[in-house]
Amino acid sequence: MIKGKDGSVIPKVVIERLPRYYRYFDWLENQMEKISSRKLGELMGSSASQVRLDLSYFGDFGQQGYGYNIKKLKNELGNILHVNIPMKFVIVGAGNIGRALIRYNAFTQAGFKLTAIFDVKPILIGEKINDVPIYDAKELGPFVKEHRIDIAVVAVPKEAANEVARVLVENGIKGILNFAPMDLDLPNNFPVENIHIIDKILALSFFISS
Amino acid sequence: MIKGKDGSVIPKVVIERLPRYYRYFDWLENQMEKISSRKLGELMGSSASQVRLDLSYFGDFGQQGYGYNIKKLKNELGNILHVNIPMKFVIVGAGNIGRALIRYNAFTQAGFKLTAIFDVKPILIGEKINDVPIYDAKELGPFVKEHRIDIAVVAVPKEAANEVARVLVENGIKGILNFAPMDLDLPNNFPVENIHIIDKILALSFFISS
Repeated sequence: MIKGKDGSVIPKVVIERLPRYYRYFDWLENQMEKISSRKLGELMGSSASQVRLDLSYFGDFGQQGYGYNIKKLKNELGNILHVNIPMKFVIVGAGNIGRALIRYNAFTQAGFKLTAIFDVKPILIGEKINDVPIYDAKELGPFVKEHRIDIAVVAVPKEAANEVARVLVENGIKGILNFAPMDLDLPNNFPVENIHIIDKILALSFFISS
Repeated sequence: MIKGKDGSVIPKVVIERLPRYYRYFDWLENQMEKISSRKLGELMGSSASQVRLDLSYFGDFGQQGYGYNIKKLKNELGNILHVNIPMKFVIVGAGNIGRALIRYNAFTQAGFKLTAIFDVKPILIGEKINDVPIYDAKELGPFVKEHRIDIAVVAVPKEAANEVARVLVENGIKGILNFAPMDLDLPNNFPVENIHIIDKILALSFFISS
């Protein structure tokens, strides 16, 4: 459980909204100096009170009658989200999704350093993509342990996903970004975020047809 | 607003969970005939009462003391999610993410038909990927209108995303799956699902460091 400055437990949904605030401040920074909770809520499609409540968990950044100082808030949120401490990550699975993520510059821009790629296909092992080496999946465990990797992006077929997750956890990985279309079998409260593309398009097709 | 069989409004979070149930039933179908809400909740990491509540919106599929008939429930959920009516979609943007999605078989397996790809780069226009043609982004509007495309996957840089969304909506697109790292400016209640990869990894790095 994560606690705010006043000691209250911060709901997971609030934490998951923070990167969105960060994105907005990053974009607003070059356009204005300060912004009110009302205006920010309008931009983000939520209410002023929601904005004030969300941000209040992380300390009193706003000033009544003045609004939020954008640059300061961006820096504070950046610290909270640890964008300033580079995190090391690996990508497991060099299939379609894995390959796209290897070339996805946004990770680097956000301060994440791709250290290695792992796959089972002999033809890929020993190759490099964007200067990042592809290693045999058998080496995943020792590599994660030795290099103290923070995050693993799991982009393997679902049949392999739980075995990959087990190896990662056993070797001290701190968090998993999972693209495999299943829920991984992980210890309670283990940091994991899922990106289930098919769930999203199925939900969309339901909304459309209703 | 979407209403359930008994006329009550179904919360968006419940609808977004349905594809996950569908995935579980698809997987369980070959292993067993029926399952209790308790067992299903355990598998999915939620409670029996949550399962019963979620599924109750869509009609009374469970039978007390017997549990849910997996095959029947899968078919019912499939109908609700319209997996049996093939939906046509286009991909806008043939960059890293767009290209990965073109080759992402799960869309086809789930009944979605990729009809065309659009990009602005002259070198790509006229090419084909996996037999699907890449057209000039200028043709997006007329194409969507003429072929009555259901869904557009937006995988363009954020600078271009709102203009693409505007063209799509004007030409009758029914829903958008957005990979651009921003919230699109869309009419109220327009069906949209966002996949913000960077938000997910930032949230993860926060959970890890806390």
